[in-house]
Amino acid sequence: MYVVFLLIFQCLWGDPLPSWSEGPNKLAILQLVEESKNLLDHEKIAVFDQDGTLWVEKPYYTQLVYALENASDKSSMDPLKLTEGEIAELIVKTHAGQSIQAFDQKVANWLSSALHPRFKRHYTELIYQPMLEVMRYLEKNGFNNYIVSGGGQEFIRVYSDKVYQIPVNRVIGTAGKVKYQEGQVFKEKEILFINDKAGKVEGINLIIGKRPWIAFGNSDGDKEMLEWSIKGKFLVHHDDPLREYAYDNDSTIGRLSHELMEEAKKRNWRLISMKEDWKIIFP
Amino acid sequence: MYVVFLLIFQCLWGDPLPSWSEGPNKLAILQLVEESKNLLDHEKIAVFDQDGTLWVEKPYYTQLVYALENASDKSSMDPLKLTEGEIAELIVKTHAGQSIQAFDQKVANWLSSALHPRFKRHYTELIYQPMLEVMRYLEKNGFNNYIVSGGGQEFIRVYSDKVYQIPVNRVIGTAGKVKYQEGQVFKEKEILFINDKAGKVEGINLIIGKRPWIAFGNSDGDKEMLEWSIKGKFLVHHDDPLREYAYDNDSTIGRLSHELMEEAKKRNWRLISMKEDWKIIFP
Repeated sequence: MYVVFLLIFQCLWGDPLPSWSEGPNKLAILQLVEESKNLLDHEKIAVFDQDGTLWVEKPYYTQLVYALENASDKSSMDPLKLTEGEIAELIVKTHAGQSIQAFDQKVANWLSSALHPRFKRHYTELIYQPMLEVMRYLEKNGFNNYIVSGGGQEFIRVYSDKVYQIPVNRVIGTAGKVKYQEGQVFKEKEILFINDKAGKVEGINLIIGKRPWIAFGNSDGDKEMLEWSIKGKFLVHHDDPLREYAYDNDSTIGRLSHELMEEAKKRNWRLISMKEDWKIIFP
Repeated sequence: MYVVFLLIFQCLWGDPLPSWSEGPNKLAILQLVEESKNLLDHEKIAVFDQDGTLWVEKPYYTQLVYALENASDKSSMDPLKLTEGEIAELIVKTHAGQSIQAFDQKVANWLSSALHPRFKRHYTELIYQPMLEVMRYLEKNGFNNYIVSGGGQEFIRVYSDKVYQIPVNRVIGTAGKVKYQEGQVFKEKEILFINDKAGKVEGINLIIGKRPWIAFGNSDGDKEMLEWSIKGKFLVHHDDPLREYAYDNDSTIGRLSHELMEEAKKRNWRLISMKEDWKIIFP
């Protein structure tokens, strides 16, 4: 059935998602966008988790790699044993005491040289082509795309526009407190809010002020955001050890628990198989 | 000189600011917009304080009137003696413990019935027509307008779209913490951040992530926001006791100190005279 729909659709309008295999998940995205044509412009909001949803998060979150290289007592830390809260604290602490401008420059420099240990490519190249296609397709249909990440807002802002074509005002992330002084904004040591789990909904409420229509995530940290979203609810499942990684319930980084997978099934949320649904992974 | 420019401008393109008297302030706005045509779209950001800049703030901030009517121990409070911090706390406290949806409904109901003590009109009718014209004119020229207010973000969101045509995601205000629970977002008792003075810059950094190009304010609470903005810096001066109010250095509500007026003069910030510059005040 969906093959017929897809064939007709692509015949009429071309294929907006060429990296997606024909199947129910691709169809679901196309149908959602068709349905969205009745929405008012300001209702067209799509939210995307970043780590593990838009780019690689293994073996560690990119920002954690950066923070560890900048931490004063890095020797004693096992990045795989840090809780999400400890990671947020480490990140905010190692980034504090500098102006946002200086921080931006430092991160941009680091990103232009650091390489991923397995793929030997820049971290900003390890983004998922199929998700880029979804973002461009939604945009073309009037959607405003937002990144809603547990990662640091200012960190993501450094490259969001260049890498995802998402402007800085549409990046919602864990935020440290800042202080305006003598014409500059400085990063401080305290956390303003942690944008994870229920915090993602609270962050969306703060910055967008509306419920999203479509949400993409990949881990337990995205559950509340998907739940609160109105219509499209997608979870990227990392099941492709050859081309990327395979992990879910037993991973500390990007954990997707059996419980959430069960619940997703019950609620008819869509589990995207990287192995089956994505013809290619990276651009 | 400016009369000639204005005449030619209006002859060619019509008058986008009909409620503004011909003079250097009107000219400055028109010229700024002309200059902005070289900017990239995402650089076109204009920020507006609300109380005293977009609508009447005397005898008390509208939201303070609302909060006082909802406070449990209102009898003991003299609204004119409250500091900005005490006002923020009172507001956050009296608004806490309800879902944002319920709060929205309550505020909307109140706004549809409450009348201003002097003008006997709804508070949302006591907005400044000349500022509406500025907002529409900027918008037409590609600007994104934001409200950046010391008032409560959720309070302003209730009417921002209807009254100012500013969507909820472009309202930056003092924010209380919220909690997502069972599908709803609830207001809590604690303040997340106070969007006043340096806090306005910090709030803009959090939500927009860029420096504004044009800023409009009216009081000492707007100084840092104007300072941080790149180009246009305007202060509305309340000098019209007949049609509105006259106050500056000696007012607790919306204080515009002699020092700031002096500084504004030195830095070439524009002081808008309600009496001289505005042909009409309310729509």
